[in-house]
Amino acid sequence: MIPKNILDGAISDAWALVLGIGRRTTDTPGHTRASFGEGEQVAADLVCQFGASNGLDAEHDAFGNIYFLLPGTEPELPAVTSGSHLDSVPNGGNYDGLAGTAAALAVLVATRKAGFQPRRSLRALAMRGEESPWFNMAYLGSRLLLAYGDRTELGQRRRVDSGLTLREHVEQLGFPFLTDGEPVLTRENTACFLELHIEQGPLLEEKNLPLGVASAIRGNVRYPSARCLGEYGHASTTPRHSRRDAVMAAAELALGLDHLWADLAAEGDDNFVVTLGRFSTDMAQHALTKVPGEVNFSLNFGSTSEVTIRQARERLAELIERITAERGVRFEMGPEVAAEPVALDARLIGLLEAQMRELGLPTMRLPTAGHDAGIFALSGIPSAVLLMRNPFGSHNPREHLDEADFALGCSVLARAMHAAAA
Amino acid sequence: MIPKNILDGAISDAWALVLGIGRRTTDTPGHTRASFGEGEQVAADLVCQFGASNGLDAEHDAFGNIYFLLPGTEPELPAVTSGSHLDSVPNGGNYDGLAGTAAALAVLVATRKAGFQPRRSLRALAMRGEESPWFNMAYLGSRLLLAYGDRTELGQRRRVDSGLTLREHVEQLGFPFLTDGEPVLTRENTACFLELHIEQGPLLEEKNLPLGVASAIRGNVRYPSARCLGEYGHASTTPRHSRRDAVMAAAELALGLDHLWADLAAEGDDNFVVTLGRFSTDMAQHALTKVPGEVNFSLNFGSTSEVTIRQARERLAELIERITAERGVRFEMGPEVAAEPVALDARLIGLLEAQMRELGLPTMRLPTAGHDAGIFALSGIPSAVLLMRNPFGSHNPREHLDEADFALGCSVLARAMHAAAA
Repeated sequence: MIPKNILDGAISDAWALVLGIGRRTTDTPGHTRASFGEGEQVAADLVCQFGASNGLDAEHDAFGNIYFLLPGTEPELPAVTSGSHLDSVPNGGNYDGLAGTAAALAVLVATRKAGFQPRRSLRALAMRGEESPWFNMAYLGSRLLLAYGDRTELGQRRRVDSGLTLREHVEQLGFPFLTDGEPVLTRENTACFLELHIEQGPLLEEKNLPLGVASAIRGNVRYPSARCLGEYGHASTTPRHSRRDAVMAAAELALGLDHLWADLAAEGDDNFVVTLGRFSTDMAQHALTKVPGEVNFSLNFGSTSEVTIRQARERLAELIERITAERGVRFEMGPEVAAEPVALDARLIGLLEAQMRELGLPTMRLPTAGHDAGIFALSGIPSAVLLMRNPFGSHNPREHLDEADFALGCSVLARAMHAAAA
Repeated sequence: MIPKNILDGAISDAWALVLGIGRRTTDTPGHTRASFGEGEQVAADLVCQFGASNGLDAEHDAFGNIYFLLPGTEPELPAVTSGSHLDSVPNGGNYDGLAGTAAALAVLVATRKAGFQPRRSLRALAMRGEESPWFNMAYLGSRLLLAYGDRTELGQRRRVDSGLTLREHVEQLGFPFLTDGEPVLTRENTACFLELHIEQGPLLEEKNLPLGVASAIRGNVRYPSARCLGEYGHASTTPRHSRRDAVMAAAELALGLDHLWADLAAEGDDNFVVTLGRFSTDMAQHALTKVPGEVNFSLNFGSTSEVTIRQARERLAELIERITAERGVRFEMGPEVAAEPVALDARLIGLLEAQMRELGLPTMRLPTAGHDAGIFALSGIPSAVLLMRNPFGSHNPREHLDEADFALGCSVLARAMHAAAA
């Protein structure tokens, strides 16, 4: 429906936008765009400039989320919506979130330049604060945008580096953090949400496929600030029976969950994951010559299966009970942040795959990590996620996206948005 | 030989010295006396004042070690020497080292006050820099004092907190760091070395005994700055077969050595110890949502048996090979600091136990951690260590010494020094 040269031009411009934002948010190593903070705001400014220079005016909700609307012939109908987030983990890659934001803009820009007006309006979103390390909670931007959860409570969360609340960060950016009334996006004005995102694992790379469609969003159970408390002692003279070694105890917890994973994998279930991403003795007190008395760690496990998540919870409780008894330590798991697995919309999955087939692309379905699309789905808006190949995983500086894969992703997205808007 | 009231008075004064230094070097929690640094110098000044006010002039070697000499009737004979160190680990207890220093001074003060002059001279030592966390090496004060090892090389070691070399720290304290010529203490002028020290484990407490004599000094193998290098990745989407998780790998290394220990203990050998006192993911890069790509850790294992140490080395090599192959990580163990087990002098052990029996005290022999006495023994000076009960272990803020146990230790030490000097 859009001439190929116009679509290709818009995609090329969007790719330049992604690279430009990457250059402006380079950290060593990788890229850092803090949620509701500095690098994210650099990206927000450039995205708004890009929209303006292509005839699309940026609008904001009360929390700094950005949206662009291209009216359809029946603008009172719910809009077909796409986009992703602008922030990154500390020292992460450049494409996680940003590529999907730029792609949605590319579709609107190309549609407008082609003079094509679909029946429904098209909406592109650039959301904030999706990554969990900053506030120990994920999808803050989409939660606020859709009023998923108590926004006043969300505003009280503190960013781990600055110590300021989310509300204070939003206000610093110049937005009012209004929690009264209806959210800007609702089921009534949003027909569906399609999110283009790099794959965060290597499955597409392993199958040598540029694109795949998410089958479901993995649920997870997270303990961002768990502790194991033992007792400091002399490393050479505290005998085995008197030790309360927090490193040995926490190591046993980690490997106990790893063994569950190995067992599940041996039974053919390769869907479970478990990670202790942070694991540290106390810098102020630890020493080569001391039995370690404290370990601070994060624990994060997940699956697309509720049954597996329940099984992992049970194993965790058993391990804590046994290790506590055997090693004389205490585990304080701290606040738990859990997200149920989220089903995605079968009709939209089919729509995305139909566009891929029409472009001669093979299809593959794969489970995915959490995305803003999960908050849309939980808010009752039909949602789907289109994934692009990324050989080196996400949340790390080696994260990679080929321009050619990005272009294919944008092409499928454009066709799917137009089909949904017809 | 010394009237009881004079000895008791000197012991009481020495105890007050220990508590006074403790008050002046309080940290939160515990006490901090940095090797060749601030808190240690506070202790050195108060020890010199204490000597001066009791008629004993402090002398210094070229490295800031302090000694006091009470001449015997035959001052040309090698002197009977006692003492310990002034420094502490960061946030350690007050008694490790300091109590033995004060006790040696108490013996000289009481002997002088009583007007008693033994045949050999008595020497009290207040040494510096015994604790390893500061320079990643232990016994620096006694090494320098006795010229055990290359003093120029020792001077180039850097303190981990300041980044300055040992030589620079000694010079800052106003000492010349001269590495030419004979050391102040030699086999020729030192008859023997008796060190009174708190026990660093709980064995005397468990047996309800105030004092014990060390049977041998444990040897150990230390890797102060080892690393496990994996690869950062997305915690939810990196599948099991692609992970290179540094925390899981290092946890497996820790527990593999812990299993060796459990096996040795089950066979009745409770002499082995293994500790990973520092164990930390990289604060700048780790996150709840990332597979951890790096762990920095220390490893420290020891035994009084060379055979066990060899066995542990072999197990370590096997574990590294297997975990590297299975988990796709790399271990960089960094510099190794090893100390062989050190035998103590049988005649001096017997002498200490004879004094204990004469005072009606039960005796017990137990292995001990490294002490300055080990450097004396390795320098060819007959040495022994008398240990005082400490219920909560050493190198931690809860370290404890009863005044009554300290008084018993001083009494045994006084008798043993006089017997050796006769």
